[in-house]
Formats: sequence, structure tokens, C-alpha cells
Amino acid sequence: MFNVNRNTKNKYYSLYSEIRGEILRGKIKSGEKLPSKRSLAESLGVSVVTVELAYEQLLAEGYIRAKERSGYFVEKVNTIRIEPRISAAQSTETRENEYKIDLTKGSAPAALFPFSVWTKLIRSVLSDCGEHLLERVPCDGDKELKTAIADYLYRSRGIDAPPEHVIIGAGAEHLYGVIVQLLGRDKLFAVENPGYGKISHTYKLNGAKCLPIAVTDTGIDCTAVENSAAYAVHVSPSHQFPTGVVTPVSVRARLINRAKSSGGYVIEDDYDSEFRLSGKPLQSTYGLCPEKVIYLNTFSKSLAPSMRMGYAILPDELYEKYKQLFSGNANLVPLFEQKTLAAMLNGGYFERHLSRLRNYYKIIRKKLIAKLDEFGAETDDSGSGLHVIAKFPQFASDDELKQTAAKAGIKIKCLSDYITAPLDVPTGCAVINYSGITEAQIENLKI
Amino acid sequence: MFNVNRNTKNKYYSLYSEIRGEILRGKIKSGEKLPSKRSLAESLGVSVVTVELAYEQLLAEGYIRAKERSGYFVEKVNTIRIEPRISAAQSTETRENEYKIDLTKGSAPAALFPFSVWTKLIRSVLSDCGEHLLERVPCDGDKELKTAIADYLYRSRGIDAPPEHVIIGAGAEHLYGVIVQLLGRDKLFAVENPGYGKISHTYKLNGAKCLPIAVTDTGIDCTAVENSAAYAVHVSPSHQFPTGVVTPVSVRARLINRAKSSGGYVIEDDYDSEFRLSGKPLQSTYGLCPEKVIYLNTFSKSLAPSMRMGYAILPDELYEKYKQLFSGNANLVPLFEQKTLAAMLNGGYFERHLSRLRNYYKIIRKKLIAKLDEFGAETDDSGSGLHVIAKFPQFASDDELKQTAAKAGIKIKCLSDYITAPLDVPTGCAVINYSGITEAQIENLKI
Repeated sequence: MFNVNRNTKNKYYSLYSEIRGEILRGKIKSGEKLPSKRSLAESLGVSVVTVELAYEQLLAEGYIRAKERSGYFVEKVNTIRIEPRISAAQSTETRENEYKIDLTKGSAPAALFPFSVWTKLIRSVLSDCGEHLLERVPCDGDKELKTAIADYLYRSRGIDAPPEHVIIGAGAEHLYGVIVQLLGRDKLFAVENPGYGKISHTYKLNGAKCLPIAVTDTGIDCTAVENSAAYAVHVSPSHQFPTGVVTPVSVRARLINRAKSSGGYVIEDDYDSEFRLSGKPLQSTYGLCPEKVIYLNTFSKSLAPSMRMGYAILPDELYEKYKQLFSGNANLVPLFEQKTLAAMLNGGYFERHLSRLRNYYKIIRKKLIAKLDEFGAETDDSGSGLHVIAKFPQFASDDELKQTAAKAGIKIKCLSDYITAPLDVPTGCAVINYSGITEAQIENLKI
Repeated sequence: MFNVNRNTKNKYYSLYSEIRGEILRGKIKSGEKLPSKRSLAESLGVSVVTVELAYEQLLAEGYIRAKERSGYFVEKVNTIRIEPRISAAQSTETRENEYKIDLTKGSAPAALFPFSVWTKLIRSVLSDCGEHLLERVPCDGDKELKTAIADYLYRSRGIDAPPEHVIIGAGAEHLYGVIVQLLGRDKLFAVENPGYGKISHTYKLNGAKCLPIAVTDTGIDCTAVENSAAYAVHVSPSHQFPTGVVTPVSVRARLINRAKSSGGYVIEDDYDSEFRLSGKPLQSTYGLCPEKVIYLNTFSKSLAPSMRMGYAILPDELYEKYKQLFSGNANLVPLFEQKTLAAMLNGGYFERHLSRLRNYYKIIRKKLIAKLDEFGAETDDSGSGLHVIAKFPQFASDDELKQTAAKAGIKIKCLSDYITAPLDVPTGCAVINYSGITEAQIENLKI
């Protein structure tokens, strides 16, 4: 009747699978009685216990039912056609490798990562924290890391934020989603155009509506914001991506005053403020009005994108709302990573690492701009961040520019690739992200 | 005129802050001319470079403008009233510590975590992977971990899922959100009542609507599902939380057939299937129809909740949609954690750990049930999972039961605490989660 694989450790499981398959395929009909345990065991040459275990499993899963003193009967199971699954479409791996140099990516070269410090800290966190590492982390993150970030911001950026208002998230993208949940997805979010596409993409994925507003030479068009129904305005005022524009304090003040009168918020995305390569970082908008500004930053650029850590500072009112909404949820960043980063910040390692990175990028930037000059490109050096806009007047269209670069093995994007809604932007403007390239690569650069 | 702190390394920054403050407070009016660099430097007794740097910073931030050959002038800055920030409400720490025993929590005792194996694996991942650990992880997770999970599921659970369809997320809660984004927040999600409150909470946070449907003695009320407009049905068929009900295959088949005819999906939350303490785990619903079931599981229960790792298996169609929606986003789980877990699964350490846990919980469960028996409570032992329902007929109300337990230092919840919509549930039924308690605690238990 049934087969049982004798070469398996789990004879009962083999028998159970066999019977289950027969039931599912309709070979044993609903209502049919199964053989008694003893007779089946005898006919198969297995122990009664094996049959008993198989029947118990079938019973637990609802394939059969037991009738007292009369045996086991097959349940009414809607037969499911078990179809061979067709494998998914082929892996959609991109052809990134065809390029020798990628000027579109934003992560630092792995060689610059303070690997030995990091492994040292990991070891000490393991021995210092021990089993505490297994504890559930409150929704807003580990207290030690929250404090370490607040201290760091005070030292490096002059931001005086209460540590409890610092919220740890699994990278900036995750925090965009949290902000939608916090402000409400019925709200309208103004975003910069051109801008970082992932911002509006993530807001939309989270169900919010976005209103792209043009970027002028002082940042987002403030008048357009004032005339809009936007509740929140997402800006990168210290170094707009991709235009590189710095928003003067007068425009920031207008954005804040509008938030005050309309009841909304300014979201300050400070994604690369650590990389002001000359002078101190520009003062934060958050510092001007902590009640109306949500401050956002990430460690993806300064450490590694694989680490997935970012943070937000929330105004009082929003922090209270955050605690109400999320207090039952756990923080998404593993405690282990949070403790290691806290040790990195508190030990001064992070700032030493940053200063090394800045010195490195100063050289890269200088070489790159000199090289671009050779190619007849005009650059506008704001001294900030890890990308530069290079205008190539010799190319009639962006496609021509990108194709020429591609032929030389270089991947670039143009300003027009970052528009978030139809907008006239100058052509021939390459957005060159130099965070991932080496000196040698610059020397061999040819367009 | 201005003060500059001579005791600071950053004299220029002190001067800059001073001037900025005067501008913001309206002490220096818009249009006013600043003193020349030389004269200010002389009057303050600092170098011209110091003043130059301060002016440059003010210029970069838009507080002043330079007029060629005539000097620096204050910009029109909307004065912002700088208010002293009132600190947030006092820390809302819970009073968990008042309880000696918490029977509501779901994490394993830290002492059972394979700490030495874990640290060993961390060290070997650090040395084996090196700088690869810094690489950006594709949206669906590290390939090695995806494959390790698929292999593990095949070995332990008989689930034959294509590794590429395994999606790594930062815990189950995070994946609930991803599922909403994938299926659409305009869809209706049927959830179990009583059920795990975080499921509907998280769906709602993500903008979806939930329809609580009563749980019968075969799981979610299938007829009610069939008569509803629900697009997705979120169930825990192997061991419903909190009732402990196991859904027989006939009901699972009905849910699948409905999904087939309505175009929707079944979401199988397999949160504690590793903890079937007798016999093999029940067969998964996913295995019955991989095209219509989203399979969900987490490592929070089996490893540690601080690790934030869960996974989903997506049907073909949804996997394609997932890649389209999220291919630009990075995975939220640090690569380091993913590699360590992959090593744990591939080396067999995870299964050894599970089997130790299961043996431990068998003892705990047996002692607990004996103890509950002493108290006159009736338990229904399904042999699955890490919680048990104990009915105390001697208490007239749930409040009375909880208060009596609280007086003995024990925190418990009742069935009625898990209802997600008004529903009559039996009173005096404690949901006892025993995953975090010790043998000694059980011995001292008094209600």
C-alpha cells in the first residue's frame, strides 16, 4: 500500500509524507478508513511506533481524524492541484561591471574604512556587553548611542539636541518612512527638483504625496513652497543634491516661518555635511528652530552603506507622538552595531576617521577638478560634499555626453537624471560623485 | 564691538558665532556694513586670518554679502525668535521592574544563547570577509544568507523555496510594512481575532486597513474570510497566537482556493514553528501553494530579539514586483549580521542551538503545566510553541486574575488582552508565555 524509505532516520516522516501525498492527490478518498496501526506496521515491516507517529502528524495537520474505537478516517480535504513551480525570471543582475569607473555611486573606498579600529571595537563590545547584546532595543534606539550622537553633533556641528530626541534608524531611507508615519501619509511633502530620487520614491512607497519644487540658486524655491499646500518641506540646505547649492539663512528662516504659520515641518537632510572640505560645517537649520525642524543624517557616507545606520532628531511634539506610535516596536538596528558605533564615537575614532577622509577627498577633489579642466569642463567648487557639477559645453545633449563617457568606460549621470518632475535644467552638466574613486583612476580618466 | 573667546582653538568660530547671534537677534540691522577685516582684527587683537575665516563662514551661510571694493554688508535675514527649548517630558520608563516574573514576553533567556559560537563566528566572518563587509547589500539581502535560509527550510521544514525568493528584513514588523507596500495599502488585510496586536498595528501604521476576523477552533473563520472583501489574509496556521489553535489542512486549502479565485494572497506567519516540542513541525501552508502564499518567519524567538532579522518567501509574481519597487533601495540588515547568521546556519550551529532550546523548553513546559495544575488551572497542551493557555475557573474576571497575579509579582495577560476587535472570549484564560522563565522561577510560582 504505502512505501516507506528504510534508509532514512525518520521512517515515520517518510510514511507520513507518502500518505499525505496520496490524500492530496485524491488517491485516498475523503471518509476512507486507514489501516490499523498494527496491520500497517506489519505489512510495511516497520514498528508500530513509526506508524503511530505518522498518524499523529497527519492528525495534527488535519488530514485524518480519529474515531474512538473504530480507527482513523481521511478528512475532507479540498484537493489542491500541486503544480510544478516555474522558477522566477532570470536574475536581473545589472551590467555595472562593464564600467571601469563609476562616478554615480556615493560610498567611500573600502580601503579608507578604519577596519582595524572597527574590529578592535567589535571585540571589546563583545566582551564588555556580553549578554546585554541580546536585549530588546527600545524603538528609538540604544540610549548610549543616542547620547554619543548628541555629543558628537554638539562637538562637531554645534547642534544642541537633547539625546532622547535622537532616533536611531536603519539608514536614511528607513527614516523617510518613519517620518511619513509620524507626520501622516495624508500630508503633502515638498521635495527638491532636481533632487535625490530615493526621497520621493520612498515617500511615495510609504503612501505620501510628493510635490517637486524647483531648486533656485538659493535652494528650494521658497515662494513656490509658500504658495503650495505642502505640509513638510524636505531640503538639503547645507549642500543641495545634486546642484550643490547652499541655502542662505534668509531662505531657511522663511521656510521655518512658513512651517510655524502653517503648522508643518522642515525636514533638513544633512546627508553630507561632514564633508565640507574647507572651513567648518555650515550651521544647521535645526539649530535655528528645533521645534519646527526634523534633522536627518546617515553614517552611510562616512562609514559604509552596508552598515545601515542613520538618525533623526525630532522636535518635542513629534518625539512625543513617536513614542506613542512606536513604543511597542523594537528598533530595527541590531544592538551590536549600535554599541560598536557608540564606542567609535565616544572614543574619538569616528572624528579621526572623518578627518582622514576629508584630507583624502581634498586631494581627490583638487585632482579631479584639474582633470575636468583639462577636458574643457567648467566646475563650480563650493568646497562642500562629495560631488561636483561639471559642465561640458562641447556636448550638444546629455545622451551624447553619457555615451562618450560610457565608451571610455565611465558611468556618469547628468543633472537631467535627477529631475523629479519635468523641469528645464542646463544640458551637458555631469553630476560627478567622486567619493568612490582613487587618484590613479583620476589620472587615467579620459572623456 | 564683538567678543572673541581667546581660549578656544577656533577663534574664528567663536567670532563667527558672536556676529551671527547679533544678526539673528536683530542687533546688527540688515544692510549695515561690517567693519573691515583689518580694523576688526586690530580692535579684537586677533589675526586678520581669523576675521577672514569668520566672514567667509557668514558669507557661505548667507548672513552677509560682499560688495566688491566696498566691504561686507548684513543680508536681510528674517529674524527668528530663538526660544529656550523646553526639555521633553520625563523619560517614560515603564515599571516592568516591579514584577518578579514576566509571563508576557517572548524572548529566550540570554543564558541559552550560543554566545561563544556566535563570537567565534563573528571573528571568522571579520577575517574571512574583510572589506567585503562594507559593500552595499541588494534590497533582498545577501545571497549567501538567502541560500542558507532556503537550505535550512528545506532540511528542517520540508519547504522547497527558490533561494532568490527569500527576502531578508529587519525583523517581522519591518516585513509587515514591506508586504503592505508590495500588495498595496488600498487593500484590505484580514487579521486574526484574538491575535498578535503588532500585526494590525503595523499594517495600520503603514496605511492599510485591517479586518479582524474571529478565530474558531480550526483557526481563522474561513467562511467569514470568504464572505469578506479581504485581499490578504494574515494567519498563523501552525500555532495560532494566542489561542494555540492548529489550522487543519482542509481550512488551509479553503484559504488558498479563495486566494486563487479572488486574486489575493495568504500570509503565513510561521513565527514559532521551530518550537513544536513533540514531533516534526507541521507542514507549511506555503508548501501547499507557493504561488499564493507569502511565508514569514523571524529569528527573534530562536536567537535574540536584538538581532532584528526575519525573512519572507515571496511568490514569483510578488518577487518580480518587489525587485521593481525596491531594487534602488539597500537592505536594512547590516551585512555583518547577515554573514554571521549565514555561517551559523551553514555550520549547523543554528540547528544544534534549536535542539538545545527545544529540550530545555520541554522541561520548562512540563514543569509549568504541572504547576498550573496545582493552582487548579486547566491547560490544553498542543505541544507547540512557547506559550500555553491556562484557564483559571476560580476567577470571576480577567482583572481579578491579573491583579491576583500582580500581587504575587507576576505579570500576565489574558485572552481578552489580545482581541483586535470586540469579541466574546472566555474569561479567566491566561496566555502564559514561558520562553523567558527559568525552572527556579516556576518552582517559586504562586498565584
